[in-house]
Amino acid sequence: MSKPVVTVLGTGLMGAPMAQNLLNAGYPVRVWNRSADKALPLAGKGAEICASPAEAASKADFVITMVSDGKAVADLLFQQGVGDAMRPGTVFIDMSSIKPAEARDHAERLAETGIACLDAPVSGGTKGAEAATLAIMAGGEQEAFNRAKPVLEAMGRPVRVGPAGAGQLAKLANQAIVASTIGVVAEAMLLAEQGGANPAALRDALRGGFADSIILQQHGERMTTGNFVPGGRSAIQLKDMDNILEEAARLGLELPLSGQMQQRYRRLVEELDGADTDHSGIYLELKDRNRLS
Amino acid sequence: MSKPVVTVLGTGLMGAPMAQNLLNAGYPVRVWNRSADKALPLAGKGAEICASPAEAASKADFVITMVSDGKAVADLLFQQGVGDAMRPGTVFIDMSSIKPAEARDHAERLAETGIACLDAPVSGGTKGAEAATLAIMAGGEQEAFNRAKPVLEAMGRPVRVGPAGAGQLAKLANQAIVASTIGVVAEAMLLAEQGGANPAALRDALRGGFADSIILQQHGERMTTGNFVPGGRSAIQLKDMDNILEEAARLGLELPLSGQMQQRYRRLVEELDGADTDHSGIYLELKDRNRLS
Repeated sequence: MSKPVVTVLGTGLMGAPMAQNLLNAGYPVRVWNRSADKALPLAGKGAEICASPAEAASKADFVITMVSDGKAVADLLFQQGVGDAMRPGTVFIDMSSIKPAEARDHAERLAETGIACLDAPVSGGTKGAEAATLAIMAGGEQEAFNRAKPVLEAMGRPVRVGPAGAGQLAKLANQAIVASTIGVVAEAMLLAEQGGANPAALRDALRGGFADSIILQQHGERMTTGNFVPGGRSAIQLKDMDNILEEAARLGLELPLSGQMQQRYRRLVEELDGADTDHSGIYLELKDRNRLS
Repeated sequence: MSKPVVTVLGTGLMGAPMAQNLLNAGYPVRVWNRSADKALPLAGKGAEICASPAEAASKADFVITMVSDGKAVADLLFQQGVGDAMRPGTVFIDMSSIKPAEARDHAERLAETGIACLDAPVSGGTKGAEAATLAIMAGGEQEAFNRAKPVLEAMGRPVRVGPAGAGQLAKLANQAIVASTIGVVAEAMLLAEQGGANPAALRDALRGGFADSIILQQHGERMTTGNFVPGGRSAIQLKDMDNILEEAARLGLELPLSGQMQQRYRRLVEELDGADTDHSGIYLELKDRNRLS
């Protein structure tokens, strides 16, 4: 039995290696990208380059979008004809990070034309995309998830976390944890440094215990060696914090740690010229707050 | 060559299994405990039970204390005669969790009589004590650490993090990370739950990524299953937060996340009757703050 056809719309830093891993897994892959030159390298690997997103989506069993935000997804679906081009039975999988409310809206509008929809944002960055080890947080109907699962497994580890929008909600929860954990690792590093302990030895001492995390080891090292080349940009972390607090407000929830980190990432980005620092740049905000350079 | 003699003062929940592991490693062990009955089971395992802390300390190469706080350590050293009873060349190792300033004070006073001193608090709880896998954060002279290292390795993984007091500072940094991480895991669990995602699936989805930690998996599960039987008591976490903020103030540091968690653990303990809940009980404080039961 031949494998189902997968279309990937958006072959940037994340989408290109994800499409590559679908090819590696034996799927026929159709691709389109707004800047066509970013899709071209995939042609040499066996992908079919398409002239428009609607054309790319028209002959697919699964249509994946990996673009910048909810507006870009809606533009593809409802302005550029992807929604109408998909055949009945196609599963639409948005792997972009967008707002939960936007994901629910897309799912509702596509349901009217009989297209099943998953929101399936990822965590793991370009390294995870290349290694096919992305954490994939999926929201949508169980049946659509079951059909899409083998396709998603070519790119990482998919887990269904609930109905439409739940994948995006999980991504926000992920980003909330990352932000406050970076924030408290910064406090631990500064406390150690100012109190006369060796921060590198501290990280080693805490390895494997309750305080240990990838963030303690990786972001903690960035803080004490002064390496704030992104990784993940603080401006993006601020956008994520705004989305977290917007969703919390919609649900009537007060999230006090995330609220503090939103304010402090805003201060880092807007007052301390830190938009292009790595997320771990919150250490610079903490030092500035303490009048330490 | 026969192994050096190790005295353990304080054979409670932590000290007893630590003494047992020293016996397992072949050290002659002398023990004393304020309530003598807690030391007795170790007699059957080969430990020598002593009538007073001074007697226990008098014939030892290493004297370990594992008691409740800095006052209890100072009482043993300077009121009950342990400081005077130790022979020159003995290394004193305080493995209790006390304030960094207290540890520095003890080290200075013992230095006057030629006794080398390490502050070496631990993380890992009774499970880590029993399995001899404690994280041991040591402060003090390198030479004393080198001599004590084999003894400490019978109980866990020792890392020297700096001079006298640095071990206690590292323990505070450890507790600061634990508190805020528990706090933000509570926010992630509540956001998922209220937004319609499955918190157990969320924990699974985040496994192995940047947001993952022992706390996400263990304390996160406690929150969603409603199991707040301690583990670690919130009253102790509040004491730790007070010590963190006291040390930060001494160093002139503002630590905004730890400051928030100090206030919220105080609210949990003093206003919400949560002293005896597990640390993860901060989830109850977050729900109360959001008028959710």
